[in-house]
Amino acid sequence: MIVQKIAELIGGQVQGNGEVDITGIRSIEDAGEGHITFLDKKKYLGQLLGSKASAVIVAEPIETDKVQVIASHPKLAFAKLLAEFYPEPRPKAHIDPRAAMGENVSLGKDVTLSAFVSIGDNVVIGDNTVLYSGVTVASDCRIGSHSTLHPHVTLYRNSVIGDHVILHANAVIGADGFGYTPDEKGHHVKINQIGRVVIEDHVEIGANSCIDRATLGTTRIKEGVKIDNMVQIAHNCVIGEHSIIVAQVGLSGSCTLGRHVTLAGQVGLTDHTNIGDRAIVTIRAGVLRDIKSGEVHGGSPNVPLATWKKYVALFPKLPDLAKKIRKCENRLEAIENKRPRE
Amino acid sequence: MIVQKIAELIGGQVQGNGEVDITGIRSIEDAGEGHITFLDKKKYLGQLLGSKASAVIVAEPIETDKVQVIASHPKLAFAKLLAEFYPEPRPKAHIDPRAAMGENVSLGKDVTLSAFVSIGDNVVIGDNTVLYSGVTVASDCRIGSHSTLHPHVTLYRNSVIGDHVILHANAVIGADGFGYTPDEKGHHVKINQIGRVVIEDHVEIGANSCIDRATLGTTRIKEGVKIDNMVQIAHNCVIGEHSIIVAQVGLSGSCTLGRHVTLAGQVGLTDHTNIGDRAIVTIRAGVLRDIKSGEVHGGSPNVPLATWKKYVALFPKLPDLAKKIRKCENRLEAIENKRPRE
Amino acid sequence: MIVQKIAELIGGQVQGNGEVDITGIRSIEDAGEGHITFLDKKKYLGQLLGSKASAVIVAEPIETDKVQVIASHPKLAFAKLLAEFYPEPRPKAHIDPRAAMGENVSLGKDVTLSAFVSIGDNVVIGDNTVLYSGVTVASDCRIGSHSTLHPHVTLYRNSVIGDHVILHANAVIGADGFGYTPDEKGHHVKINQIGRVVIEDHVEIGANSCIDRATLGTTRIKEGVKIDNMVQIAHNCVIGEHSIIVAQVGLSGSCTLGRHVTLAGQVGLTDHTNIGDRAIVTIRAGVLRDIKSGEVHGGSPNVPLATWKKYVALFPKLPDLAKKIRKCENRLEAIENKRPRE
Repeated sequence: MIVQKIAELIGGQVQGNGEVDITGIRSIEDAGEGHITFLDKKKYLGQLLGSKASAVIVAEPIETDKVQVIASHPKLAFAKLLAEFYPEPRPKAHIDPRAAMGENVSLGKDVTLSAFVSIGDNVVIGDNTVLYSGVTVASDCRIGSHSTLHPHVTLYRNSVIGDHVILHANAVIGADGFGYTPDEKGHHVKINQIGRVVIEDHVEIGANSCIDRATLGTTRIKEGVKIDNMVQIAHNCVIGEHSIIVAQVGLSGSCTLGRHVTLAGQVGLTDHTNIGDRAIVTIRAGVLRDIKSGEVHGGSPNVPLATWKKYVALFPKLPDLAKKIRKCENRLEAIENKRPRE
Repeated sequence: MIVQKIAELIGGQVQGNGEVDITGIRSIEDAGEGHITFLDKKKYLGQLLGSKASAVIVAEPIETDKVQVIASHPKLAFAKLLAEFYPEPRPKAHIDPRAAMGENVSLGKDVTLSAFVSIGDNVVIGDNTVLYSGVTVASDCRIGSHSTLHPHVTLYRNSVIGDHVILHANAVIGADGFGYTPDEKGHHVKINQIGRVVIEDHVEIGANSCIDRATLGTTRIKEGVKIDNMVQIAHNCVIGEHSIIVAQVGLSGSCTLGRHVTLAGQVGLTDHTNIGDRAIVTIRAGVLRDIKSGEVHGGSPNVPLATWKKYVALFPKLPDLAKKIRKCENRLEAIENKRPRE
Repeated sequence: MIVQKIAELIGGQVQGNGEVDITGIRSIEDAGEGHITFLDKKKYLGQLLGSKASAVIVAEPIETDKVQVIASHPKLAFAKLLAEFYPEPRPKAHIDPRAAMGENVSLGKDVTLSAFVSIGDNVVIGDNTVLYSGVTVASDCRIGSHSTLHPHVTLYRNSVIGDHVILHANAVIGADGFGYTPDEKGHHVKINQIGRVVIEDHVEIGANSCIDRATLGTTRIKEGVKIDNMVQIAHNCVIGEHSIIVAQVGLSGSCTLGRHVTLAGQVGLTDHTNIGDRAIVTIRAGVLRDIKSGEVHGGSPNVPLATWKKYVALFPKLPDLAKKIRKCENRLEAIENKRPRE
């Protein structure tokens, strides 16, 4: 594909020879002759200029003899280009005869059910949705259209999955929330979890992640949320639109996240925590108190990131501080002993 | 169902009109007309009185025109009621012809083997046990009666599962413990893990959790233990009766928990840790030393919770403390410089 | 088997009666009459002498009437012995008719495909490799020889698995890396992940672990690496030869580990972290900065272990230090007030 064609595709302007032929898309580190790459941050400019890349997507023109495509969001343009050059492969729609079907199942147009898929009673699946090998859908689930369920995904009963949703391998949607109450002997009596999970449109959930169903009511993952691998979302949580949850995060029961929240990797939230819109929680933080909209918190227990950075910087100095205190005490004693008593 | 009938079911006393008809069970937040709810903690009394709930389970009579059911443990009564109104649905017992069976398999009465279940040689399964789609049971396993194995559970060879056990989707029981020893070149030689896992009666294990088999001997989960999602129990651990382990906890090898221990979410234990009966470890603690019976520990490395709370409260004051020390030093210097030398 | 035979097997020298018959291998705690065990650390000598073990593998002769086998690495000898006495059972090679096969699949000699295995198009599998029930291999994957894929392992497209590799149940190899870029409205646009995963020879990966495929290029797990359960390796990471990664560790994108690195349980690495050869990161550390070859780090954020130990020891003394500072201030004030003003 020639650069001119790429520019049209991503809505950018060519600067240089638009007839140059592009044979592949690469990151700056790997770009060679015939490749197009993108420049997202100024700090990679040197690396770009040192590379043999034939073309580059940039926000503003730079000094180079490479062909440039000027686009306001180079990384977004790059994402569009990748999607065009390397679209996610999808199987030709088919119902494998080795799929197990319940009663009263309703399938849309061009649905794929691979081998060893198991569908319960009263399940509804929308158009163009793909279920890969071993996916298990319990009774009374609804799955929208244009969604993809990777191998061995499990949906417990009554789960609702929207359109354009991607669930990665072994994701478990709607398993029982973790709820017990002790009897007279201190044995744990199960509180039946009779709620459900709703996953709205354009959500992606990583491999081996779990979204538990609500005790009563609904655990809800709202539109556009992206969840990484091995994330645990407990019963009755609500995750606001377009939030990002990175790998190995754990949310205890009944947490509420606003819109556009970011939880970095290995963060943990205690139960009933509320996090406001656009708040950010940094890597490995332990959230024991609510966070207001727009705030950035770190540490465990969480505090504003700036505070956390200050005291973390002091940790390695603690032995020295302790020593200084001891010296102050000694000096005080020396002064006090020398002074005349009253 | 009328309130009078509900009271009989849970062993409570009606106060008010026992003929009122109940159409659903709800938490206080969601309770409306026709619903019964429960009051567990005094702090929710206002919310209860503001709701349209028709009836409420309480430990002691309150002032309200709602119908009351007096029961000594309202939450336990509520759990019983949920189980009665909304029993866990179970499939009608059947052996799906698409299940793969080994040799010398012994099945009890009314066992369910769903499609794509795979059973190895010499496996024994007790009465009324249900294996959902894709469950894989290796050779020489024994599973008790009235147990439920959700989709894609894997039992490695020789695993023993008791009665009334629930294993959630993708739980892995009996995978190899993580054991190697370096050879002359520093390459890791596998130590074959030839032990097994025993899971006793009334245990529940969450989705995507792993219980590794012992190197030699037995990894044992004792009666009544409840384990949440994504919990890792390494080889040769022993978990005491009626303990609770919340999501994403990790136990290194050869840890021992007493009875009624609670490990909150994301806790980690170093190897060979011993935790006494009824001890509690709070959220995200890192346990590097033993904990005695009845103690409550937090922090990483763990200390008694009260200690941890004290020093955590001081973390944000560290920059201020450092500043104060500097000031003390300056003041000391000023004093020392003014004092006549000896 | 008689002791003399065992000594020959592991290349050791018998001291005592080589004709004694051995009926089992045990750890020191469990060893009884007829058993052989091993002594790895001096501190277990008392326990050994108190046991009824008939024979023991030791590095140097000890005073005992048990038969001794002298071998330079007792634990390594023990591992060899376990492998000989209790070899990992493997099924007789067979292709189950219930396996689902794609087009253009190439199988080596003596491959096992169990029931409900699903193989995509253009897959190549080497000699003597075993795929257990429910394993799903997407198109264009290559798997070497003598490898074992436990139940419900998923390989996404283009994954490459070496020889003598073990993948435990539910491991997910090659799922999409977690990559998005915001559009004009702040919605997350997926960056198609078009790279792949390569897992080299003699690697073992634990149950429910995930290795994500690269955005562009390769996520690589090099020869001899051992990875425990529930470990998350993000896109574009490279793990050096013979490294050890313990359970529940998480690596963010583009991290690089050298050779023989050890990451203890629940460690987390921020993105683009580099860790040098033979470095060790202790349990639950949060790695926010690079670690040089041979260094040992702990804490979160990570510092050299010795530093971490010092300041951790001071945490419980913080309230006391704060009190001491207050006292110093008071004493200073008293002195200052008493001194004649200038």
